[in-house]
Amino acid sequence: MRLGLVLWGWRSRFLPALSLRGLKTAPSQPRALVYEQHGEPARVLKLKDVELAELGDSGVHVKMLAAPINPSDINMIQGTYALLPDLPAVGGNEGVGQVMEIGSHVTSVKPGDWVIPVDAGLGTWRTDAVFSEEALVKLPANTPLLCAATLCVNPCTAYRMLSDFEALRPGDSIIQNAANSGVGQAVIQIAAAMGLKTINVIRDRPNLQELVDRLTSLGADHIITEEMLRKPEMKDLFKKVPKPQLALNCVGGKSATEMLRHLQHKGTMVTYGGMAKQPVTVPVSTLIFKDVKLRGFWMTQWKRNQVHNKDSLTGMILKLCDLIHKGQLTAPACTKVPLKDYAIALEASMQPYTSTKHILVM
Amino acid sequence: MRLGLVLWGWRSRFLPALSLRGLKTAPSQPRALVYEQHGEPARVLKLKDVELAELGDSGVHVKMLAAPINPSDINMIQGTYALLPDLPAVGGNEGVGQVMEIGSHVTSVKPGDWVIPVDAGLGTWRTDAVFSEEALVKLPANTPLLCAATLCVNPCTAYRMLSDFEALRPGDSIIQNAANSGVGQAVIQIAAAMGLKTINVIRDRPNLQELVDRLTSLGADHIITEEMLRKPEMKDLFKKVPKPQLALNCVGGKSATEMLRHLQHKGTMVTYGGMAKQPVTVPVSTLIFKDVKLRGFWMTQWKRNQVHNKDSLTGMILKLCDLIHKGQLTAPACTKVPLKDYAIALEASMQPYTSTKHILVM
Repeated sequence: MRLGLVLWGWRSRFLPALSLRGLKTAPSQPRALVYEQHGEPARVLKLKDVELAELGDSGVHVKMLAAPINPSDINMIQGTYALLPDLPAVGGNEGVGQVMEIGSHVTSVKPGDWVIPVDAGLGTWRTDAVFSEEALVKLPANTPLLCAATLCVNPCTAYRMLSDFEALRPGDSIIQNAANSGVGQAVIQIAAAMGLKTINVIRDRPNLQELVDRLTSLGADHIITEEMLRKPEMKDLFKKVPKPQLALNCVGGKSATEMLRHLQHKGTMVTYGGMAKQPVTVPVSTLIFKDVKLRGFWMTQWKRNQVHNKDSLTGMILKLCDLIHKGQLTAPACTKVPLKDYAIALEASMQPYTSTKHILVM
Repeated sequence: MRLGLVLWGWRSRFLPALSLRGLKTAPSQPRALVYEQHGEPARVLKLKDVELAELGDSGVHVKMLAAPINPSDINMIQGTYALLPDLPAVGGNEGVGQVMEIGSHVTSVKPGDWVIPVDAGLGTWRTDAVFSEEALVKLPANTPLLCAATLCVNPCTAYRMLSDFEALRPGDSIIQNAANSGVGQAVIQIAAAMGLKTINVIRDRPNLQELVDRLTSLGADHIITEEMLRKPEMKDLFKKVPKPQLALNCVGGKSATEMLRHLQHKGTMVTYGGMAKQPVTVPVSTLIFKDVKLRGFWMTQWKRNQVHNKDSLTGMILKLCDLIHKGQLTAPACTKVPLKDYAIALEASMQPYTSTKHILVM
């Protein structure tokens, strides 16, 4: 730990940059939510004092400002995710921080910049980190804190799924289940900005109308429950909106099979989650005679594929920030929780039907 | 019927072409296997005297020589296929015939040529037909009768599936179930000619070794039963052969799911049949984390997509005929049955575990 060199402090982004290489603030002890073994997050995570890595020539000392708790973070700690870090590890896979100090070879960020770490597994639930320059993307000025903290996983996933699988044009439609999820809400907003019509499938619930109103306010065109999705009355919907060319599946099981029934000939269903813990079941005739394509999407892998060329990644971040600044993309409903109260936030974020994202603030 | 102009006779392809527009042979009454309603083939099909359509300027009078009974022919008559002709209709969707007479505008075929009708639903179980020139592809001279009669569905399906979904290179491997089917046998041979390694899954049966020997003689590299496909010992196989990039699924159900397990990251499974009458079930993680693609293939649709440009189609037929002439692609085991004995052939072709294709000869 280089306490003599690495200084950090408040979470304000308007700290004066006192030098080209470092922001001077009062030092405080770096802390992180560390787990040494896989298991239930509330049991295995501990808030610990930690030492910072050496800055070196290409390191960037980032003071983390805010980091959300995503379902994949939980799975990673439980040890059930497809990507597991070496242990001990720091929890969290996205967030936003402010650059405090940079190594002598670092050129793409400077002290005071807000940055997001773009690779998974880096550990964002901490007060401070030294990241490599390559792992960071700089945000435009004045990006709101909660938008910045939640930009890197869900809106990016939504953006890529809407861009990479079907050549969609204004007026085309898409269908998605789990429309209330973080990705789902981003899909609604980005699709609306692209001029696409969205058919949004949600589970029935006591406060259904409240949720319908909220998704409508985000720009959702049609909102239906899983039960409605299975009914013959769906044909009435398709008098108002064209059959979707793209289905986004975060659920699996019956929900996925039902979405497939409504997909256009030659359409694509992209699976990015499996909340129902059931596989995707596809009638043989759908593949052969409807020529429907089934694909999967994993944001982490997409980002890793860009390792030698960050242009697509930074281009996407800038486009999303542009939508944010135009008011076309907002952060999900969030509850801010101080880092020290992480146990409360973890428990709340693991409740079913939760419709607020818990954000750790440092 | 233009008996005065349209003359037909034997099935020999070496008949002298007595004029540029017609082969002269003794006339005989055209007959066809006609069905007026959907149902069990043995019940609804009748061998009837029929009238030939007018030749016109662009018609081609073809004397059919041989036409196989394929599973899709049966489904079409039963009314369960995705493509159903107007009734009454003539059974059969592929076969080979000889050109007897051509309309005055016809340029691509001449009397004496052997031709295959390339669109489905034209009805090939008959002695004579007038087809449009566009529906016919001319075969190279000396193509063996049984190869010619069975070229248009199964080898073409195999060729397209090996060509259109993954960029396969010599040494790569593919896996297929129903490896004993007509398509399966064509896949083995065409893949071997392409330098690909094949992993062939078949159902266990009393005369298993006999079938293994036959598929091996066609060029199959590895032959395993459905039961073996599920066993951990499969890992030993992959010490000898790379994991497949392409899986060809004609079965569905467990067999398809098991093939998916062994597919390479980013590989493709193409479904072209559903013999198990069960859907394809895909673990969500296979889609997301293995980035496996699921597609379908239907030869009939592919051919219809070429309607304005037959170059790909004729190019494929010529390539397949080239393989035939080099001895790299043979007809499946066939049993020839005279057209009048169609009921026997239909019954035999609908038996389970049938390993011979029944060919109606006219």
